[in-house]
Amino acid sequence: MIGHDDTLPADLLLRAGILVPQDGERRVIDDAGLAVKGSAIAAVGPWNELAATPAREFLDCSGDVVLPGLVNAHTHAAMTVFRGLGDDLPLMEWLSGRIWPAEARLSAEIVEIGTTLACAEMLAGGTTTFNDQYIFARDVARAVHAAGMRCVLGEGVFDTPNASYATMDQAFERVAALEDSCRDKPLLTTCLVAHSVYATGHETLKRLAAMRRASGGILTLHAAENAQETALCLERFGKRPLAVLDGLGLLEPGLLLAHCVQVEAAEALLLAERGVAVAHCPRSNMKLASGMAPVTAMRRAGVRMGLGTDGAASNNALNMFSEMGAAALLAKVCEGDPTALPARDVLDMATREGAAALGLDNVGALAPGMQADLIALRRDHPALQPGFDPVSDLVYAAHAAPVRLTMAAGRVLYKDGRHLTIDRRELDLALEGVRQWARGG
Amino acid sequence: MIGHDDTLPADLLLRAGILVPQDGERRVIDDAGLAVKGSAIAAVGPWNELAATPAREFLDCSGDVVLPGLVNAHTHAAMTVFRGLGDDLPLMEWLSGRIWPAEARLSAEIVEIGTTLACAEMLAGGTTTFNDQYIFARDVARAVHAAGMRCVLGEGVFDTPNASYATMDQAFERVAALEDSCRDKPLLTTCLVAHSVYATGHETLKRLAAMRRASGGILTLHAAENAQETALCLERFGKRPLAVLDGLGLLEPGLLLAHCVQVEAAEALLLAERGVAVAHCPRSNMKLASGMAPVTAMRRAGVRMGLGTDGAASNNALNMFSEMGAAALLAKVCEGDPTALPARDVLDMATREGAAALGLDNVGALAPGMQADLIALRRDHPALQPGFDPVSDLVYAAHAAPVRLTMAAGRVLYKDGRHLTIDRRELDLALEGVRQWARGG
Repeated sequence: MIGHDDTLPADLLLRAGILVPQDGERRVIDDAGLAVKGSAIAAVGPWNELAATPAREFLDCSGDVVLPGLVNAHTHAAMTVFRGLGDDLPLMEWLSGRIWPAEARLSAEIVEIGTTLACAEMLAGGTTTFNDQYIFARDVARAVHAAGMRCVLGEGVFDTPNASYATMDQAFERVAALEDSCRDKPLLTTCLVAHSVYATGHETLKRLAAMRRASGGILTLHAAENAQETALCLERFGKRPLAVLDGLGLLEPGLLLAHCVQVEAAEALLLAERGVAVAHCPRSNMKLASGMAPVTAMRRAGVRMGLGTDGAASNNALNMFSEMGAAALLAKVCEGDPTALPARDVLDMATREGAAALGLDNVGALAPGMQADLIALRRDHPALQPGFDPVSDLVYAAHAAPVRLTMAAGRVLYKDGRHLTIDRRELDLALEGVRQWARGG
Repeated sequence: MIGHDDTLPADLLLRAGILVPQDGERRVIDDAGLAVKGSAIAAVGPWNELAATPAREFLDCSGDVVLPGLVNAHTHAAMTVFRGLGDDLPLMEWLSGRIWPAEARLSAEIVEIGTTLACAEMLAGGTTTFNDQYIFARDVARAVHAAGMRCVLGEGVFDTPNASYATMDQAFERVAALEDSCRDKPLLTTCLVAHSVYATGHETLKRLAAMRRASGGILTLHAAENAQETALCLERFGKRPLAVLDGLGLLEPGLLLAHCVQVEAAEALLLAERGVAVAHCPRSNMKLASGMAPVTAMRRAGVRMGLGTDGAASNNALNMFSEMGAAALLAKVCEGDPTALPARDVLDMATREGAAALGLDNVGALAPGMQADLIALRRDHPALQPGFDPVSDLVYAAHAAPVRLTMAAGRVLYKDGRHLTIDRRELDLALEGVRQWARGG
């Protein structure tokens, strides 16, 4: 957090060349000001109205486009340690030959290093908030807290014994322990995490749903990811994946489903009617050849949608600019319609709508009272010129290179190519250990 | 060009942390050396074998991945001045409402500025060579030459009078003038450019093909881009687009076709048999909802393929990293096969194979005798860590941010965020003029 001085109305005053507040009015403000008090935004408006605000610090982003920090609605951060370990392989060969053997040897330490690497990558790419689901979630929490990012995270509960726990009782102990460890970490929110209707037992799913109702948070799982899952559900349960969830009473507000590729028109309406949110992961769905989610049909039905990178093993980037581009372009070619999923909708998914899907009502837009989670991109980067339409440029032309500054809760975490909360030399040393671990050493 | 000293075996000695030479043996060399003499590569090998080479200059890329400069096989550089001017619109509304009115007001000056902006973007994104086709090509040439990039370029010849020429005679005068102006520019090669079988007259197409045969260079045009083109060709000529070209005797080595989305299995075999090359433009095909080119079928048939961004009006980036990722991911989801178009094939398309498609035999790989066109990416960028597979990381995880250095013909054009041949302040001023021009001023 930046320094406080209670006698001043603002701790930090920021001047933005262009502000894209994502406040629901689709405004784009030239030469804007933004005042931060503590971790929250105190004021937003034209610079000439805010210029005189007394503040301890001034941040000059007058050459930048400033917008809310991007929200990655579905990832497994620690899986950066698997990046490039097995690409271009058939799904089962990839899982059983590469990922599962490596995951069986995971440790709390490796998960913490992988999560720190993921945070470094996400901060450099303008992401401030993410939804994480993995094992050793307490170690994920430690890494994210150290990096200063915002996260909604949970310990994945599934039937197979794994490196983190051997029994269901131990799994739920992990869930409780995570909650304890997050209590004193204001940017971390716990959530409940199942794997899927085929890898998490149905009694366990119901138990997780009941816990979610008691907590008021979210429950998330993978659903309707590909045709194999649908076939498996039909064979084992006699129903499609979403119908299985419906039968268990899980389709209700607070449920966040990742992927949702195999969704028929009636199912899209059902998701909307029940207030279920979806994390769309276009690059992962493309790389694993899972298929193309019916994004515009779901949005037309009224489903709340975020955008997620999935883990680095199946993407292989944790870059929300790449993800925004992929979402916009895939929808168009998939539907044969160049007007499908316009840039404004995609930016909503990557900010305010994604935040809402994670159950967060205080991030995803820059407005008084919201948390000061924001990013600044250099307007003079060639990819953002001539700059006729900042929102189009952010979705279709930008990439991580123009990202100049990333702030969460009023604290600058990344600036001008430097990470301020992650010791890169220490991380590089730790990654040397990861490379040895990957070689089996 | 770097300084010469004939008494020394090398002008420049470079040390690379990892070298991906793309020399056809799929080698990846750890701790490599590369010696440059004049504009060409004199030696490549393990660093310990080259370390003692006397050279005027030393370039330390020991923390980087070094590979050939990327080759953008199809673009219209000057169209950066239309970036963001009209997105998410139906094709005809976009063309007739936005692009054509703006193009009618184009001038040599606007084309030169737009091309300079494109060069700035491509250099920052690791592209050293591109194929350009637009009007006012002499002004394109001037900008590219000033930027120090390599380019195969031509004046687009099509039936409609436009801002560059009013008659066919004038069009061919433009073609001849471009050739004259490129004679003293060693990195520029002219090519012949038609628009398509529906926008360039068939006698003109045959004339261009005859000129190409006489020159020994390449002829390029858009072909089989979308279903509307196929329907139009069937209606007007009674044949599909590639059959029209075949009937005109154009399907032969030296022909480069952009897009080739609407290609049937037999047509893929025909293209391969005739030695026709294809520039695949996945992001443009996605954004305009043109469809998905049958890339693996064409490659299996033996078609030589490059990768192109198309112009910034329909992409909207000129970034070959985004294009490589899109190519690899789109092929997988399109064919329902996660093994389709692996990373190594995509990197070939973006380097050696793309260069060959443009008729260049001296770029696209780092080997003795080849031109010293290369790029260096910071290995310590989080997106490239842990670094188990450099080629996978380049295609799936990298973006422009890690690009640290871009060199063409032995000359450093971009380094550590700075353009060395483009005056960014002057460009920014010129872009202010472009914004006024776009507003009709």
